[in-house]
Amino acid sequence: MQFSNDNATICALSTPPGVGAIGVIRVSGPEAIGLCDQLFSGKLSEAKGYTVKYGRFERNGHTIDDVLMTVFRAPRSFTGEDVVEIACHGSSYIRQAIVESLIGAGCRMARQGEFTFRAFMNGKMDLSQAEAVADLIAAESEGAHRLAMHQMRGGFSKEIGALRQQLIDFASLIELELDFAEEDVEFADRSKLDHLVHEINRALTRLIDSFKTGNAVKNGVPVAIVGKPNAGKSTLLNALLNEERAIVSDIPGTTRDTVEDSVIVEGIRFRFIDTAGLRETEDAIEKIGVERSRAAIRQSAVLIYLFDVNETAAEELASILEALHQESEGATVIAIGNKVDLAAAGDHPSEKYPKETLFISAKGRLGLERLIEALLGAVELGKVDANSTVVTNLRHFEALTKAHASLMEVKNGLLSGITGDFLAIDLRRALHHLGEITGEISSDDLLGNIFGKFCIGK
Amino acid sequence: MQFSNDNATICALSTPPGVGAIGVIRVSGPEAIGLCDQLFSGKLSEAKGYTVKYGRFERNGHTIDDVLMTVFRAPRSFTGEDVVEIACHGSSYIRQAIVESLIGAGCRMARQGEFTFRAFMNGKMDLSQAEAVADLIAAESEGAHRLAMHQMRGGFSKEIGALRQQLIDFASLIELELDFAEEDVEFADRSKLDHLVHEINRALTRLIDSFKTGNAVKNGVPVAIVGKPNAGKSTLLNALLNEERAIVSDIPGTTRDTVEDSVIVEGIRFRFIDTAGLRETEDAIEKIGVERSRAAIRQSAVLIYLFDVNETAAEELASILEALHQESEGATVIAIGNKVDLAAAGDHPSEKYPKETLFISAKGRLGLERLIEALLGAVELGKVDANSTVVTNLRHFEALTKAHASLMEVKNGLLSGITGDFLAIDLRRALHHLGEITGEISSDDLLGNIFGKFCIGK
Repeated sequence: MQFSNDNATICALSTPPGVGAIGVIRVSGPEAIGLCDQLFSGKLSEAKGYTVKYGRFERNGHTIDDVLMTVFRAPRSFTGEDVVEIACHGSSYIRQAIVESLIGAGCRMARQGEFTFRAFMNGKMDLSQAEAVADLIAAESEGAHRLAMHQMRGGFSKEIGALRQQLIDFASLIELELDFAEEDVEFADRSKLDHLVHEINRALTRLIDSFKTGNAVKNGVPVAIVGKPNAGKSTLLNALLNEERAIVSDIPGTTRDTVEDSVIVEGIRFRFIDTAGLRETEDAIEKIGVERSRAAIRQSAVLIYLFDVNETAAEELASILEALHQESEGATVIAIGNKVDLAAAGDHPSEKYPKETLFISAKGRLGLERLIEALLGAVELGKVDANSTVVTNLRHFEALTKAHASLMEVKNGLLSGITGDFLAIDLRRALHHLGEITGEISSDDLLGNIFGKFCIGK
Repeated sequence: MQFSNDNATICALSTPPGVGAIGVIRVSGPEAIGLCDQLFSGKLSEAKGYTVKYGRFERNGHTIDDVLMTVFRAPRSFTGEDVVEIACHGSSYIRQAIVESLIGAGCRMARQGEFTFRAFMNGKMDLSQAEAVADLIAAESEGAHRLAMHQMRGGFSKEIGALRQQLIDFASLIELELDFAEEDVEFADRSKLDHLVHEINRALTRLIDSFKTGNAVKNGVPVAIVGKPNAGKSTLLNALLNEERAIVSDIPGTTRDTVEDSVIVEGIRFRFIDTAGLRETEDAIEKIGVERSRAAIRQSAVLIYLFDVNETAAEELASILEALHQESEGATVIAIGNKVDLAAAGDHPSEKYPKETLFISAKGRLGLERLIEALLGAVELGKVDANSTVVTNLRHFEALTKAHASLMEVKNGLLSGITGDFLAIDLRRALHHLGEITGEISSDDLLGNIFGKFCIGK
């Protein structure tokens, strides 16, 4: 994927393929209006931006379709260039004929993400906003949508930009010192720098920590359900999938290749992974099951341990939970006692087990509300409000982590009293990583990688 | 499917479902602009028709998406009502949230074809034009597209309207006579009426005859390939499918449920049906194959009889062609001698067989050009030019046939000198059938039947 600003006028179908009432073909570039004018019965050359013309799209004297042409004039358009959006009848024959005519008239077929790439190149959005456009299109839940929207509207960029500007100001002072190195002056107050680095690293740490939540919201929260064979795992799963508050994810056209059982609660998608259990075994086939369960547990953000209150003693539960905590590498573990409806009268399970334990009857659908609250609590939903920035992108997470590490070097350097030139190197490195997020710093590889993931027409 | 003009403001997704860069939601009705204004950060109420506003689509203070709102004001819109088209990012979550918000604000979900139905009710198009919109969206070949476009632009309606008007003028004179029945006057000149009916029936006959071609162009031309087991049927089929001039139909999203082998040549789709052969047999299973072949032959518009020039004598060919002509009920029969490349040197097959016979080598891909020309000739492509109307719709074909029959009654009545009141009945019947085509005459059933076949959002 080679991205360059070749100044060509590009075109592509921007609506999904398939049959529908309307299809939209987008044309962008210096010749967009002139090219479309040649193929249109009306007159676009004098059309103002943000106006629509109705007429015939024609090729070699044949009408291909009656179309609406919307004109946007640079720089007030999505790409920042002249743009024409052609709305035609949604037949594949017509769409193809229009795109072919445009190419015949001198357009080039747009590459994946090339419209957004041009918006980026023309300063309409930075790199993290461009990435948010792709996230927005892919968002399937309210939470994922809200985070992508916040990022697209520049919330994240603003925060990174502010941190970066503070560092730049300081770095300039240090670079200035280097110019006067022989005079041994100190323009940059070291204790102020130490304080600034401390503050910035606190902000970076908050952002880095938010990735766990952000990733969960964007990609769904993997929840492993573990328990002995008769604990009621499948019954619980079915009960959760049928909860009134829960909406089973079945948005047409978006979930075709996922067959996981998932539930969206309060805008967060929980992806449930049923497991075979963890019992030590010598049986080869059963061992595979156990190995799979272990893998599921390691990948999960939340681990539900389901047990039968009529079968499992408090001591046994304690040792199992201890083992799961070790196995789970930091996931939230929730212990759930099932089949409370079968407990003998006068037997109060809540008195036997640790106080964090939840009690349910999966079959009777009792206690599910509290379980759902516990799931929402586990992903720290409090962090996902409209005002705070949450990192959802692995690339950003990695850049933030590297920037944080570079600033730790600065901090250590200040402690050990190293010279300005070494401080400058680490500061530049931190600035580089922060700049990668918003695209002040970018490479062809990085751009190809980001925009290559877009669909054609975006 | 109940269609009525309930004056509601309706909305629906008008672009295909699935993920894409852009989705368009259409809103139409008296409250379209006011309703959308409530959910939009910008101001639509003073927007002129054919202008676009950029802003935020909001629900309960949350931004659902950055959108473009295009305003059309009645009667200058597709439906003839106030229309707003909302272009949003093509995510299913966003599309759903926008449609839900619109419904929450007072819109009703549009029924299938309801936008086009309103365009019909508001006089923006007649019934045959509305049907052409659906045909246009479904058109997969240039020929089908061109016919639908001609019909949508009113070519057919104009022709029917002109014929109908002439009849109406005459019918009024006859109705007038009935008012003065006791005075025994004749306002309507019988010989002029006879001449008019003759002219109109000539026009109707031309339209009725065009249906064979129109149907072939719209739905593809069924071509049965018949021949003995080793004549080379499959090789011929593969050779045709690979011909450079031929484009195998594989337009995404449109041909999902057809698995026929088909080829589009010069804008006409040919659908090939390979058959098992026609040999008389006592074997039960083979009999089924023969029965299927017979059915395929009866459905086909063109029948290719493929034979091996090295195996089939001229006399045998003559008797087979004779039988096929009888079996085929009027289809064009093309005899094709295969394997000319294997014929002995000095042996010229063309001298042995009837002069219409074509000669090919399916394996060597020789002679296919002439075969394709023969296929195009068989559907009388000459009839499909941009200026003449071709009937493509079975409903129109039936109405035309009935109108023609009623006018034959008028003609017969005139010959036998029946009275004006009987003539009036037959004239009214002819007018009724012609009026059904364009929708001057319509019933709820008819409308439900026509618009129920549209997709949602059209």
